[in-house]
Amino acid sequence: MCNSSNHGVVYKGPGQVAVESIAFPELALGKRKCNHGVILKVLTTNICGSDQHMVRGRTTASAGLVLGHEITGVILEKGDDVEFLNVGDIVSVPFNIACGRCRNCKSGMTGICLNVNPARPGAAYGYVDMGGWVGGQSEYVMVPYADFNLLKFPDSDQAMEKIRDLTLLSDIFPTGFHGCVTAGVGPGSTVYVAGAGPVGLAAAVSAQLLGAACVIVGDMIEERLEQARSFGCETIDLRQDGDMEDKLEVILGEREVDCFVDCVGFEAHGCGCGGHHKEAPAAVLNSAMQITRAGGQIGIPGLYVTDDPGATDEAARIGALSMRFGLGWAKSHSFHTGQCPVMKYHRSLMQAILFDKVNIAKAVNVQLITLDQAPQGYADFDGGAAKKFVIDPHGSVTA
Amino acid sequence: MCNSSNHGVVYKGPGQVAVESIAFPELALGKRKCNHGVILKVLTTNICGSDQHMVRGRTTASAGLVLGHEITGVILEKGDDVEFLNVGDIVSVPFNIACGRCRNCKSGMTGICLNVNPARPGAAYGYVDMGGWVGGQSEYVMVPYADFNLLKFPDSDQAMEKIRDLTLLSDIFPTGFHGCVTAGVGPGSTVYVAGAGPVGLAAAVSAQLLGAACVIVGDMIEERLEQARSFGCETIDLRQDGDMEDKLEVILGEREVDCFVDCVGFEAHGCGCGGHHKEAPAAVLNSAMQITRAGGQIGIPGLYVTDDPGATDEAARIGALSMRFGLGWAKSHSFHTGQCPVMKYHRSLMQAILFDKVNIAKAVNVQLITLDQAPQGYADFDGGAAKKFVIDPHGSVTA
Amino acid sequence: MCNSSNHGVVYKGPGQVAVESIAFPELALGKRKCNHGVILKVLTTNICGSDQHMVRGRTTASAGLVLGHEITGVILEKGDDVEFLNVGDIVSVPFNIACGRCRNCKSGMTGICLNVNPARPGAAYGYVDMGGWVGGQSEYVMVPYADFNLLKFPDSDQAMEKIRDLTLLSDIFPTGFHGCVTAGVGPGSTVYVAGAGPVGLAAAVSAQLLGAACVIVGDMIEERLEQARSFGCETIDLRQDGDMEDKLEVILGEREVDCFVDCVGFEAHGCGCGGHHKEAPAAVLNSAMQITRAGGQIGIPGLYVTDDPGATDEAARIGALSMRFGLGWAKSHSFHTGQCPVMKYHRSLMQAILFDKVNIAKAVNVQLITLDQAPQGYADFDGGAAKKFVIDPHGSVTA
Amino acid sequence: MCNSSNHGVVYKGPGQVAVESIAFPELALGKRKCNHGVILKVLTTNICGSDQHMVRGRTTASAGLVLGHEITGVILEKGDDVEFLNVGDIVSVPFNIACGRCRNCKSGMTGICLNVNPARPGAAYGYVDMGGWVGGQSEYVMVPYADFNLLKFPDSDQAMEKIRDLTLLSDIFPTGFHGCVTAGVGPGSTVYVAGAGPVGLAAAVSAQLLGAACVIVGDMIEERLEQARSFGCETIDLRQDGDMEDKLEVILGEREVDCFVDCVGFEAHGCGCGGHHKEAPAAVLNSAMQITRAGGQIGIPGLYVTDDPGATDEAARIGALSMRFGLGWAKSHSFHTGQCPVMKYHRSLMQAILFDKVNIAKAVNVQLITLDQAPQGYADFDGGAAKKFVIDPHGSVTA
Repeated sequence: MCNSSNHGVVYKGPGQVAVESIAFPELALGKRKCNHGVILKVLTTNICGSDQHMVRGRTTASAGLVLGHEITGVILEKGDDVEFLNVGDIVSVPFNIACGRCRNCKSGMTGICLNVNPARPGAAYGYVDMGGWVGGQSEYVMVPYADFNLLKFPDSDQAMEKIRDLTLLSDIFPTGFHGCVTAGVGPGSTVYVAGAGPVGLAAAVSAQLLGAACVIVGDMIEERLEQARSFGCETIDLRQDGDMEDKLEVILGEREVDCFVDCVGFEAHGCGCGGHHKEAPAAVLNSAMQITRAGGQIGIPGLYVTDDPGATDEAARIGALSMRFGLGWAKSHSFHTGQCPVMKYHRSLMQAILFDKVNIAKAVNVQLITLDQAPQGYADFDGGAAKKFVIDPHGSVTA
Repeated sequence: MCNSSNHGVVYKGPGQVAVESIAFPELALGKRKCNHGVILKVLTTNICGSDQHMVRGRTTASAGLVLGHEITGVILEKGDDVEFLNVGDIVSVPFNIACGRCRNCKSGMTGICLNVNPARPGAAYGYVDMGGWVGGQSEYVMVPYADFNLLKFPDSDQAMEKIRDLTLLSDIFPTGFHGCVTAGVGPGSTVYVAGAGPVGLAAAVSAQLLGAACVIVGDMIEERLEQARSFGCETIDLRQDGDMEDKLEVILGEREVDCFVDCVGFEAHGCGCGGHHKEAPAAVLNSAMQITRAGGQIGIPGLYVTDDPGATDEAARIGALSMRFGLGWAKSHSFHTGQCPVMKYHRSLMQAILFDKVNIAKAVNVQLITLDQAPQGYADFDGGAAKKFVIDPHGSVTA
Repeated sequence: MCNSSNHGVVYKGPGQVAVESIAFPELALGKRKCNHGVILKVLTTNICGSDQHMVRGRTTASAGLVLGHEITGVILEKGDDVEFLNVGDIVSVPFNIACGRCRNCKSGMTGICLNVNPARPGAAYGYVDMGGWVGGQSEYVMVPYADFNLLKFPDSDQAMEKIRDLTLLSDIFPTGFHGCVTAGVGPGSTVYVAGAGPVGLAAAVSAQLLGAACVIVGDMIEERLEQARSFGCETIDLRQDGDMEDKLEVILGEREVDCFVDCVGFEAHGCGCGGHHKEAPAAVLNSAMQITRAGGQIGIPGLYVTDDPGATDEAARIGALSMRFGLGWAKSHSFHTGQCPVMKYHRSLMQAILFDKVNIAKAVNVQLITLDQAPQGYADFDGGAAKKFVIDPHGSVTA
Repeated sequence: MCNSSNHGVVYKGPGQVAVESIAFPELALGKRKCNHGVILKVLTTNICGSDQHMVRGRTTASAGLVLGHEITGVILEKGDDVEFLNVGDIVSVPFNIACGRCRNCKSGMTGICLNVNPARPGAAYGYVDMGGWVGGQSEYVMVPYADFNLLKFPDSDQAMEKIRDLTLLSDIFPTGFHGCVTAGVGPGSTVYVAGAGPVGLAAAVSAQLLGAACVIVGDMIEERLEQARSFGCETIDLRQDGDMEDKLEVILGEREVDCFVDCVGFEAHGCGCGGHHKEAPAAVLNSAMQITRAGGQIGIPGLYVTDDPGATDEAARIGALSMRFGLGWAKSHSFHTGQCPVMKYHRSLMQAILFDKVNIAKAVNVQLITLDQAPQGYADFDGGAAKKFVIDPHGSVTA
């Protein structure tokens, strides 16, 4: 293998990322050979909202971490135990790393694999507390348990044509979809999606794919709401005064929705008049209980953390939120949390893309950038740009 | 109530239907007052493929039966126990009559209500062996257990605007949808729908609403296949030579589908070269086992009967078919039969119509006719017209 | 009907209940005749832990309320619209009052019926904020929508023989069972049940019926734990020092359980060393996230309220709890709340009782008392007696 | 590894099996090293009813086939890619061989793995048409994809104590359980199990574990029915005259059951008066439609084959059966077929065994034999002995 140089996006400390030379990946885990792994030449690798949590200093991530868990690539080299994939295959990498051999993986819960993170169930590439795996916002990356984890695209030419859409299979499309599934979205549902960032928009698209009658997206950034309207969603601007229920009634003729998807998570801000500049980590969850009909389900793909060193109060620093749980109980709500088990959905969503049933790239406004532009992408995204930045480290797509 | 005249479509014997004067409905069941019932002025009432089974003489139906089980109407009068509906409400009537009080109804299985048919579970309006209820291809009809059975449209003006679509909620849209649900159709599925009659087309639309990646419809009538292609389905003309698997491979790149929906039923004909003129009641089921992938599900909304006096062989006369069940077993198939429990789906599908997520009327090619034109509608439909005939007995829609 | 006198248990203010003369029930709702209702002669009617919330003054219940929502009786009179039940039938009354005709009832969510409580979805007999229906800790009571709500026992003699068990079908057996079902309990599960009151014990029995491998019950009252051990549960005494995980490891060889059922609710107290005398409304929920395995489900039949006038802090007064939600999120937990929809389960559980598959009366330690003994029963139960008090107002059982 | 001798049970032709010297297993698949495999020293290996299909000459099995797919063993040697198991671990081997890496395995359908049998989905050890894998009724056997396939018992001493029960986890306990699950068995169900062979008895035990109210087992062999009664089942002797419905009514007070489990398969015989000596491959399925209530489910773990060279008529020779499908359709039945995906259930059922919730060995009457006694075991089993023969090739258990 003559490729020996590699570059990646590195977290340098709060507010700072840089593109630096990093080690070329090896088929090894520590000193042990990793026969089940592959080395990928990265075709596309996306910047994710959850990367921002780290970059904003809201986690315990250490400087030096190579970022990136949304990876699509071509197999450059494979280990001896990889049987069903070949060099040259184009593949989507689920952001969850999973062994395929533990109790959780065997039952489809690949987001909480028991074998890939000594600290706790669940692992990801390039993410704090998620097992120490090297991230993939880089030219090359190693993927373990490749036969199990990877989704091979059936035709390479077709894959390259649709790569802007397919790149979203590694995380946000399945994540938004999982939020909808756990919220009980189906044909005819009315759905509220909290947050119009990329995951929120992916959830909105997913709700449409699942047959929802009406999808309403709420956010505080007009540009993002405009993006949501571009593919047929209704929107609610949370900076404007007025009761949520009244706004829903104008749109739906009803004051509640069937399904609620929280795509915001712990960095939520109070919504409604005046309070929207202050962080209020339970704001979205409390809003969910308020506007979801009795018997409705609340899907929560938005991240809530166990420790938030940047929180404004002590309770939130240990992940404790003031939830109006009694209201949810009175309405028989159920609450569904956790990392999306990407593998449960990625094949189906790939099919929807390949058969032109969904335009996810357009919906989330994919913007291709070079690896060198990644720091600027982080900054723009943090500023609220209604774009999903996709790094094309080798110029494979734009070429 | 000054309305005292009523006319309806009456089965007169094999091959014959006529519009005749029939009794005006009363809120009574035999001698007992039916406080839970309503009398509807019929707005629309559709001719169904299963009516054809009777008219063709393939059942034990007696002459004199008033036909019609696909009914949409406006409430003219209501019994004392009807609490949540009012005179003037526009409502969809599920073709299954259900008490709402038995074990089956309570668990959502309204297609096999235990209280409305002394002969066996399940009842319908105007249908042989289904409880002796008067049919609704007429000006007026009585509906029992109205609070339970009826779906009220939220806005009457909106309902009249979309009546061509909403009229399909009484049977074929839920029936096709149920076929897809029991076949396991979801986002990304590949689906084969056997039969391009109205139920088949409704199943195809339903599969799309459920997010299917590719819907393939098979039939022997070119006009019906053309109709299927008009809203984006792939089609297979069963009169043409060649293996099904080869045809699938051209369309899908794979030789099997994920999901199979049998919208044909017991009047199936052998498909493929030469044999298609001969009845072969297990032909569709055997084809299902052949082309459905291992682990796939087979939804069977198409009717199979317990007794078929018109069958060509003795076994089929008692509903016994020669199924290649060992093949299904080797592929771990599951088979899902029975009348669609309309109530499980009609509200959701109404929402999909009201929010413009689906154009079911266009897909099945709704053709409005007067009550007097009903006999011609039966004849045209039997001849294979790619139309869904909807009777407008009072000229309410066309006016 | 010559019966015209009636007596019932009346809430008189915090800490006080009394047996008083109350009105004899009529088949009427306000001024309207209630044709769908029946009048029951009460055979058994149980005192429930949730009645205690009212009696302790932890709700906004007004003095004068007739208590009691766990009712079994014989039909004394029926309305004209009651078709499938007869005078003399012995029936179990689900504590949820449900119309059987609204969207929620039709989909099995009878705990949040939309038509029987003007204030909000869901109603019950004799309970604050639950629709104003007269309670059934009395000699006679009216039950609306009888055909829909009531479960008829197939044989009256058999029913009287097993009445100590069957009386628990109106609430706590289904409620405990629902907690287990929503917690995902199945064959081989390890289950932690928080609280060894009657609902907790019913949940423990339910877990066994569902095939659980090991059921562990935690409480602070030794007498109740002893009761749990009497039918094969493991127990944890929460007054004793030590980590929950360590205690689990001794019992299970593992530090977490598969399933968690919260049968305590908002009146929880901190568990572990020292803190157990202070109320800590989120204590059980936080404990659930701590000891439930990643991917596990948390069933919450224990009541959480929207308003708690007796709470020790302002947040809890509006039902807001300090939940360590980030921990649950990291473990992909789901949380399932709300009143049990009794009808979903009561027939199945009746069968389990009638075929001698379960001894629920013995497990919860049913203690029959007269109506006059009810105030003493309330006091004893509040004092932590490991008994389920069942009032036998006519001496029908003890005779 | 100094072990180099091995002996196994070999199919010699219709009616004949013999214990012969066979090759010692290697960690290889053809010429390729099998790093993901292990070599087991077999502790117990059971004779299965489906082995009998081969031995009776009802399949296309060739002489020379090493039989046996029900294997429990201790790991003697492991390949380099086996990470989570160690030499000395005692493990249960699911009879389905599965790669853990294909679409079907990833969704839990390990019975129809796409990668382990070139002929069709699904493989097993020592079975015709199931991929050509060497069987395990032997001293030593190789198991591929060991990390994925094997279930490790947590404690070796405990495992050896309960080995008579645990040995049934490789096939019949999960298979019977799967039949019940797909038949919809749950708390309170009434269940009919067709066939009182080991799978039928395992299904009956499973139904009890799932909380069934009443389990009725039908067979033609009195000794097997006696065995069923020994653990609390009701029984129906199919050689006796009379309608099934009448017999059910005596037992249940109802003429139908909720759930039906077919543990007989294609070698069924007509039941009822007179006809029971003649093979009637659809007899059990037709009986299922007759006695299962409307809305019920029919679980079919009993084997139906695609080709039956020994069938008495031409249709059955290609696996075509004369099913009275119209009756099933009228009752909205669903039919669930296929090999049990053992991995879906074995861990849960192991827990039920280890915590003493089930006595499966006693229920199916486990009889330990030596390897040399295997031919006699086959003969006795074929003769209808109400025993489950478990080979103990090294004397590990009986020692």
